[in-house]
Amino acid sequence: MTLRLALIQINPTVGDLAGNQELMDAAVRKLRDAQPDLVVFPELAVTGYPPEDLLGYRRFLDDASSAVDGLARAHPETRILVGAPVLEGDRLYNAAILLHRGSRAHTYRKCTLPNYGVFDEKRYFEPGRRCPVLRFGEHAIGVSICEDIWVPGGVPKIQAENGATILINISASPYAAGKVEERARLVRHRAIEHGVTLAYLNIVGGQDELVFDGGSLVYDAAGRLLARGRRFCEDAILLDIDSGSVPAETALDEEPFVQPRYEGIEEIEDELRPEIVDLGSLDRADRVALEARSPLEEPSYDEEVYRALVLGTRDYVRKNQFREVVIGLSGGIDSALTAVIASDALGPKKVHAITMPGPYTSESSLAGARALAANLGISLIEAPIHDLLVAYRESVVRLLQTESLGVTEENIQARIRGNLLMAWSNYHGGLVLTTGNKSEVSVGYCTLYGDMAGGFAVIKDLPKLLVYRLARWRNAAGPGTDVIPEDTLARVPSAELSPGQKDSDSLPPYPILDQILEARIEHEEPPDALVARGFDAETVRKVYAWIDRSEYKRRQAPPGIKISTRAFGKDRRYPITNRYRPA
Amino acid sequence: MTLRLALIQINPTVGDLAGNQELMDAAVRKLRDAQPDLVVFPELAVTGYPPEDLLGYRRFLDDASSAVDGLARAHPETRILVGAPVLEGDRLYNAAILLHRGSRAHTYRKCTLPNYGVFDEKRYFEPGRRCPVLRFGEHAIGVSICEDIWVPGGVPKIQAENGATILINISASPYAAGKVEERARLVRHRAIEHGVTLAYLNIVGGQDELVFDGGSLVYDAAGRLLARGRRFCEDAILLDIDSGSVPAETALDEEPFVQPRYEGIEEIEDELRPEIVDLGSLDRADRVALEARSPLEEPSYDEEVYRALVLGTRDYVRKNQFREVVIGLSGGIDSALTAVIASDALGPKKVHAITMPGPYTSESSLAGARALAANLGISLIEAPIHDLLVAYRESVVRLLQTESLGVTEENIQARIRGNLLMAWSNYHGGLVLTTGNKSEVSVGYCTLYGDMAGGFAVIKDLPKLLVYRLARWRNAAGPGTDVIPEDTLARVPSAELSPGQKDSDSLPPYPILDQILEARIEHEEPPDALVARGFDAETVRKVYAWIDRSEYKRRQAPPGIKISTRAFGKDRRYPITNRYRPA
Repeated sequence: MTLRLALIQINPTVGDLAGNQELMDAAVRKLRDAQPDLVVFPELAVTGYPPEDLLGYRRFLDDASSAVDGLARAHPETRILVGAPVLEGDRLYNAAILLHRGSRAHTYRKCTLPNYGVFDEKRYFEPGRRCPVLRFGEHAIGVSICEDIWVPGGVPKIQAENGATILINISASPYAAGKVEERARLVRHRAIEHGVTLAYLNIVGGQDELVFDGGSLVYDAAGRLLARGRRFCEDAILLDIDSGSVPAETALDEEPFVQPRYEGIEEIEDELRPEIVDLGSLDRADRVALEARSPLEEPSYDEEVYRALVLGTRDYVRKNQFREVVIGLSGGIDSALTAVIASDALGPKKVHAITMPGPYTSESSLAGARALAANLGISLIEAPIHDLLVAYRESVVRLLQTESLGVTEENIQARIRGNLLMAWSNYHGGLVLTTGNKSEVSVGYCTLYGDMAGGFAVIKDLPKLLVYRLARWRNAAGPGTDVIPEDTLARVPSAELSPGQKDSDSLPPYPILDQILEARIEHEEPPDALVARGFDAETVRKVYAWIDRSEYKRRQAPPGIKISTRAFGKDRRYPITNRYRPA
Repeated sequence: MTLRLALIQINPTVGDLAGNQELMDAAVRKLRDAQPDLVVFPELAVTGYPPEDLLGYRRFLDDASSAVDGLARAHPETRILVGAPVLEGDRLYNAAILLHRGSRAHTYRKCTLPNYGVFDEKRYFEPGRRCPVLRFGEHAIGVSICEDIWVPGGVPKIQAENGATILINISASPYAAGKVEERARLVRHRAIEHGVTLAYLNIVGGQDELVFDGGSLVYDAAGRLLARGRRFCEDAILLDIDSGSVPAETALDEEPFVQPRYEGIEEIEDELRPEIVDLGSLDRADRVALEARSPLEEPSYDEEVYRALVLGTRDYVRKNQFREVVIGLSGGIDSALTAVIASDALGPKKVHAITMPGPYTSESSLAGARALAANLGISLIEAPIHDLLVAYRESVVRLLQTESLGVTEENIQARIRGNLLMAWSNYHGGLVLTTGNKSEVSVGYCTLYGDMAGGFAVIKDLPKLLVYRLARWRNAAGPGTDVIPEDTLARVPSAELSPGQKDSDSLPPYPILDQILEARIEHEEPPDALVARGFDAETVRKVYAWIDRSEYKRRQAPPGIKISTRAFGKDRRYPITNRYRPA
């Protein structure tokens, strides 16, 4: 007898308890005819992920608990497994709650709490210790949550050893470039390792700096992919799993993820306790067989990153209830890519551009901004800053008692532009999207309250070379042909804040800079290791020092979408006051 | 035979491994003649606290380890106990390392890792499991680190049960108003509870948002205060402890700090293992008896908060190597108090003020700014913003195609001022201190990139009423008489951004607002609880919604000094995207 599983990859909003409940209600109603044995929602689907310090607010926990009970009461005939926080005494758990006959039939408490990178689960939750196997009739199911299966051994191992043949893992696993392959390798590995069918359900949607990419997966014990959820959108997987099938022998690769943080797993295992929970028989009417699900195309690396940015932007705008956005178009590649992403995310009518030429803006930049806006069909206002710059020069010369303003005058231009964008935003209520890339913000090649002014930083985690790569990919992939003008792509990078200025006057060439940045930020390489690999010692020293010295700027940067293995923001937490300068 | 203990309350800088080592070197050298049996430095004194993600940088850990070894080699004749990170395999510990004869004689690994509020220790460290008792001759000493003694039971209990009669706790315990009494009650309680002398050593100094206030304490088993370190400055306690004394029976109060997060202490205790470490005899020459230490005055509440702000400001400026600061003086109370704190922290020569009158600035505000600058002896530049506002009006009217700018024009005034301050900062290299208080920033009554523009927010954690209170305290305490003009104190609070504007046009009266804010932010009270206490329901609803809706502004605010039990920043971590609105 097969188990009919419905894995619902939803996009909840953090804190929107009523809205999230309605999302789930609608999904369960829609599936009624298919008669699933178990409908599964992702980790913390009730609250959205991550709810952060809302979890310390008792009223919020009570209301989340009521939402779970409401879902149970609305669907007494359906078995629902849903992720929600559960408060027991003074202990809070990250739980997967099984609902049946209008109430809570079982609660699994997450045992393995991630507390690194963007994760702070030990701030909020106590770890569970029990590894239950749920029996429905002939089926034996082990439920776990996200990190539980990333650890070698631990919860899934104990569940399989105690008879589980189907493992269900509900997750909220944020996107990072390349992570999808890692995740597929992991899920397949665990399925083979424990001789089970493993259904991995991921949440989807943008939340502040994070994008959850969906892409749920089901592998059987022979390492065959049974089903896969779509990436970057809501989806549902409905499939019949045959518990009785004997897995073909499949060779097991090496354990894929022995990471330092999991070294102590033997000790965790000592604490975990197996438990068998009998939930009665599966009594149900005959039902029609499901059609086979056709395999999905996997996006290329560039497409994947691009879609993450589109979803992250769309959800930040939508979930924060903005009607429209505004972007300062310089004619350069960064603002061009940002505008295209925004247009793809929201539709061109909700995207407004302002181009603000100054004394050092080239004709070709202005032409590039105009061409881009026309190609996208977004509105463009031209607001020259010359008069304001003259007025500032007078005031600032008086203030500083000097005529030679140098960099100060460059920053003033950027800040005038920031102020005009914010004036538009104040008046219209739209969100300002900033356009800075990761290379700039890493070394502080950007102006606080100037080009950094705005509510959401779409490409802040994209190194400059990736900005070019995605622009070329989008130009080729469409919609539209060469939406970003070739001139913009070909232009020598420049902030155009002083005569003849080029980024390369101040920074190493981007192919060099981006490699040094990745080495320092994503891999924490010491400087001499780079020098040993052939980088110029003085360049490395300078770039490393710039990274440290611009932490204060990044602390005031708007949030933006994490796409790398280590983004600025909640992911990389460096002190501002920091005198460490490694040799 | 007594044990001569030297507790050195130092002010290290995060990341400054060489500088911190030099601080400790100098202290050990200075103490040589007193012949201490053990010289003790605080938690993570080698790296500064908290080093945050520097702890994930392998090279940093190696360099910190070298600094420890350097300290050991420099003082082979002295027993030194010092806080430092220790990497063993892939596991990192927050350790107290005993140095003797040029090398590491013993390592204690912190067992209880705080991971709430401003603390993220589980992000970095593994917990230790051993509770060693160190024997020097007839003395039996239990070493622990900070949080270890805040937990009822746990490490100090096990050490006392295994013969320790002297407990030494090295800490990095940040300041919050009222915490000093709590700390004294705790240390005294543990000393009596375990029948030991308990020496509690705290670090001192400012680090980004935190101020460590020193105030080290030694209590004996009878609950008598043997010694106390100064508050908000470096200090050393040198005292002889008699291990042989029998404690007088002293009544024990109730356990002072049974907090939810410690409910699981029985389980922690199961994991902890006692251990006896014999470190040989205490062979030493005769030495002169120490003079009795005179008791210190404890500052009042107002003085304590004020000194925290002074130290936090001084250390942010000094440790980030700024030579001077600049403040926009409006003639209002917030900027006045900020300027006085800065002047007390840095001396008036390093403090520069700019007053930027606009069309709605009153004569009395301008007079107030002038009087304050004269009273403090700080430089004052007057830079009217009228011309710039006219220029902006023209550009923005053209941009928005409307004459009625409303709030947009208010924000423009604030941003012009922000730009002028930043221009001064860009040119001179000085740090802009912002002047916003907690009441404003809680409800978003402030302008991003305007009055929020700057590098450090001195009074961001002070509710408006506390701003008044500290201003009055400082006026009375001196130096100087009524430094802040009476007119400034008496003025009706106003941003002066539109004709006749008063804060009370937009906000509830501050005595009401501040209570609601404290209830929501510090105590997480639901709105109906406030209504039950007599607050107007509509006011409560509005204030609660403002707090949630201005999270995006706070995310871009500069760091500032935490003085409350819950500050914005690393302490209170709410999502920006958050649709939760409690009933």
